[in-house]
Amino acid sequence: MALKAAGRTSLVDSVVEQLRAQLTEGEWAVGDRIPTEHELAEQLGVGRNTVREAVRVLVHAGLLESRQGNGTFVRSTADPAAVLRGMRHAGAIDVLELRVALEAEAARLAAVRRDTSDLLRLRAAVATLREEGDRDSDADMAFHLAVVEATHNAAFAEVYRFFSTQVHEVLVRALGDREMPPVDIDAHEALVAAIEAGDPAGAEAGARELLRLPMETVAALDAAG
Amino acid sequence: MALKAAGRTSLVDSVVEQLRAQLTEGEWAVGDRIPTEHELAEQLGVGRNTVREAVRVLVHAGLLESRQGNGTFVRSTADPAAVLRGMRHAGAIDVLELRVALEAEAARLAAVRRDTSDLLRLRAAVATLREEGDRDSDADMAFHLAVVEATHNAAFAEVYRFFSTQVHEVLVRALGDREMPPVDIDAHEALVAAIEAGDPAGAEAGARELLRLPMETVAALDAAG
Repeated sequence: MALKAAGRTSLVDSVVEQLRAQLTEGEWAVGDRIPTEHELAEQLGVGRNTVREAVRVLVHAGLLESRQGNGTFVRSTADPAAVLRGMRHAGAIDVLELRVALEAEAARLAAVRRDTSDLLRLRAAVATLREEGDRDSDADMAFHLAVVEATHNAAFAEVYRFFSTQVHEVLVRALGDREMPPVDIDAHEALVAAIEAGDPAGAEAGARELLRLPMETVAALDAAG
Repeated sequence: MALKAAGRTSLVDSVVEQLRAQLTEGEWAVGDRIPTEHELAEQLGVGRNTVREAVRVLVHAGLLESRQGNGTFVRSTADPAAVLRGMRHAGAIDVLELRVALEAEAARLAAVRRDTSDLLRLRAAVATLREEGDRDSDADMAFHLAVVEATHNAAFAEVYRFFSTQVHEVLVRALGDREMPPVDIDAHEALVAAIEAGDPAGAEAGARELLRLPMETVAALDAAG
């Protein structure tokens, strides 16, 4: 029974990989209806239950979409799980550089688009950082999210949320038992001042300065082997 | 029979959503072992097969990891499918701004790190663009990927591959039956020249210039309603 379940599991996994490859290699385009469960089961020489489970995995991954009584359609051919795998194999510096790209541009956009409520939120976030001390990572994350949301760009905010979690996990793994580098609160305040002044170049420079310390810490660890 | 299958499907989906929420809200940390199939089935009042299918979905999503005979562990708490959902609800301009963030920084890094083989590949990509005409999106994508890979940052390359597909899908949807804006080949050549000259600021400006035309096209469509 256990063996049978294990065999079934790996069969579902191979059907998932097969369909994932067909999707990302462009065999079907966005909006296309893919073959029915019955057809796929025949083509792949597996049972319909196996196909059904594999399709569910890809629906949850955001690649497919089931429409009741109408079949299964391609929703996207960009595979988000591949990003996660790529990030996992990349080094901590690589991931931090990606974060710099997002935060530098977010700071530029925030300086141009921030409204009164964004500024109030940013000032409150700096005040919390001062109160909670310089190693409170929740307060720090709340600050950076406030900057990103001041861009009024929904795509940026969603991607940033994803990366900030990733970056945190990569840093924790890279640092091991060592302490996280302290948060430079004055630099945070300088970034808020540039955003408030409507100065995109100053805000970008401020965002880069904020990430200099974590970057140097990780580079030193890498150099130490 | 069909009804039962439909009921089972939505049960698996609710267990997936339940576990996904527990993961992204931090109930378990990266590296933690989650409760066994048996325990989860009892806690949630569902069958073990339902739990097993839900766990498989989250393994493929990159959030969980099954270790044979040892249980299921938390691999990441950052949910990539949420990014895909966020991108889908964002506007085309939002997604293009995100692409600017990635490409501007990639161009800066490429100008500092490119080696001889990167430069050969970039020059070949521009030559192909000239030959294939200014609307060949494969040649254009190959060019941009060459820039991103000249950063020698694996995380950047993976994320870029994901976003370029997303951006393309969003643009196709936004443009409908209208033609894609033509590719400005001279601007591509200017970007390569700046990367070759080792000029990060020039390369960044070049990358921004390349995306100005698609951005203006989409903004004009938005304004036209």
